[in-house]
Amino acid sequence: MSLAEQVLEGNIRAAARLMRDIDDGRPQAIEELKQLYPRTGKAYIIGITGPPGAGKSTLVDQLTASFRKQEKKVGVVAIDPTSPFTGGAILGDRIRMNRHSCDEGVFIRSLATRGSLGGLSRSTSDVALVMDALGMDIIIIETVGVGQDEVDIVKEAHTTCVVMVPGLGDDIQAIKAGILEIGDIFVVNKADREGADRTARELSTMLDMRHPAEDRWNPKVMKTEAQRGTGIDELTSEILAHRDFFLSSGTIHDFMRQRKQRHFLSILRDTMLEKAMQYMAKSNYLEGIVTGMSAHEIDPYSAVEEIVATMMPGCID
Amino acid sequence: MSLAEQVLEGNIRAAARLMRDIDDGRPQAIEELKQLYPRTGKAYIIGITGPPGAGKSTLVDQLTASFRKQEKKVGVVAIDPTSPFTGGAILGDRIRMNRHSCDEGVFIRSLATRGSLGGLSRSTSDVALVMDALGMDIIIIETVGVGQDEVDIVKEAHTTCVVMVPGLGDDIQAIKAGILEIGDIFVVNKADREGADRTARELSTMLDMRHPAEDRWNPKVMKTEAQRGTGIDELTSEILAHRDFFLSSGTIHDFMRQRKQRHFLSILRDTMLEKAMQYMAKSNYLEGIVTGMSAHEIDPYSAVEEIVATMMPGCID
Repeated sequence: MSLAEQVLEGNIRAAARLMRDIDDGRPQAIEELKQLYPRTGKAYIIGITGPPGAGKSTLVDQLTASFRKQEKKVGVVAIDPTSPFTGGAILGDRIRMNRHSCDEGVFIRSLATRGSLGGLSRSTSDVALVMDALGMDIIIIETVGVGQDEVDIVKEAHTTCVVMVPGLGDDIQAIKAGILEIGDIFVVNKADREGADRTARELSTMLDMRHPAEDRWNPKVMKTEAQRGTGIDELTSEILAHRDFFLSSGTIHDFMRQRKQRHFLSILRDTMLEKAMQYMAKSNYLEGIVTGMSAHEIDPYSAVEEIVATMMPGCID
Repeated sequence: MSLAEQVLEGNIRAAARLMRDIDDGRPQAIEELKQLYPRTGKAYIIGITGPPGAGKSTLVDQLTASFRKQEKKVGVVAIDPTSPFTGGAILGDRIRMNRHSCDEGVFIRSLATRGSLGGLSRSTSDVALVMDALGMDIIIIETVGVGQDEVDIVKEAHTTCVVMVPGLGDDIQAIKAGILEIGDIFVVNKADREGADRTARELSTMLDMRHPAEDRWNPKVMKTEAQRGTGIDELTSEILAHRDFFLSSGTIHDFMRQRKQRHFLSILRDTMLEKAMQYMAKSNYLEGIVTGMSAHEIDPYSAVEEIVATMMPGCID
């Protein structure tokens, strides 16, 4: 039986093996993903994002417990900041969410951020696909940070919760403005801290300026203390309310098409670069370019035009 | 006279125009960059990175003033988190560093983070190239966040300062571990806050575990209060000390080659995707793929293999 077939039967160890194969870039993993693809699309994806120190991991842990109480199977994809040199995840799967480690209805996977040319959002899509095929009802994607890739990853989610925390500095104001557009629900975590009410009020004011309307979703600001479990049930209900709105609204169709297009394009981009690297390796082309650039005899813009014309002959006007 | 020639003569307005053309993706901008390329490589690049709320902007402002006292021309590239929808920079150039706005020796440029398929690190390289050609002695690249792109951007810098701040949460511990490898200098800013000494001590301990050696650079932990200007001169001296070490060490050669290779590959990746988009647009190929994926009749992995085989016929085994 293929790995894909085992995953579709709910075999957790097969899913873990397949994810490892995807990480290692084994060609066979692509064949398995091809088999899985037609059988996916059932899981509901929740994105949890916000600045470092906001307590996102604890919140994800509590949300997982809350969905488990409702008999939902929960997959968690945690994107960790990592050493650009070792490439290893800092917060390993083992030390995360210990209390769910014996629960077969919870599947946790940490993804390391990669070097320049590996697509993090693509890895996330692939891992979510495997969890979906495995039968997870809910997939929670947690990203630390506010960078470009993190925003891209959040676009994969049906419902995005932006987690803020009272008392961070000025940059947060800027992030708030940037993050207003991507949040379906705003969470002020560590709500027992000084300034929590003010942070919640500021967020509400900024959201109000966007002119709430009846025919679209109007995000709420919720307060939680994830550490103590306060406000989690309310947050879970609000997530489900957003899901109901989303599934019944006309936007789901466009959302799904855009998501599929991004997935296709990210695989396309990775694959083209991979093929180009193989092609250039044959003739030590890349070495020569870099040497020429170092001597200021070659500029990279002209070099790219030349090699692209050679590799993609049918695509040049 | 071409824009490139005007930039090389130090024309600030021409540089601003060229950067706008780069942003807008005008083909002519590439021709100008080709002309500039051979005349660059003189600027020294300093990266300033760290979590939101660490006071990086204020620190950059102070460093700029400090280098100006030494008669150095300073370019600043600030990467702002932005709305994924509007694409506009939140902290505009205008509201940043007002006190330098009349100084011809300072050139400030905010870069917006872009959507999924625009390369932020490539834009940064291109903008830094223009500043270099314009005659800036020092280029400071400031990134908010700790994401993957931010790490990539930091790799462009000769000297990287990682800015921490006392009293952020648990996630910071993880980020610290990940960020240890990329910092040449560590700065505990807001050093008047409670916990500053402890944060500095923790960082020093983690750095000590890496076994300092005489033949390589051993990062120090500095304390600053950027708001009041405390510790800035010391930081500037330490940056220059790292520069002297770096330029005289054997690693500069490899560093420059790697940087050039990344620059070439990021242009290559963007260009290939652009050509592929144009190619697919002719036949509404992308639309068809997305429709097929939505109907679960096509998987994206097979679709990519097929289109890549068509577009890059010489690169397939």
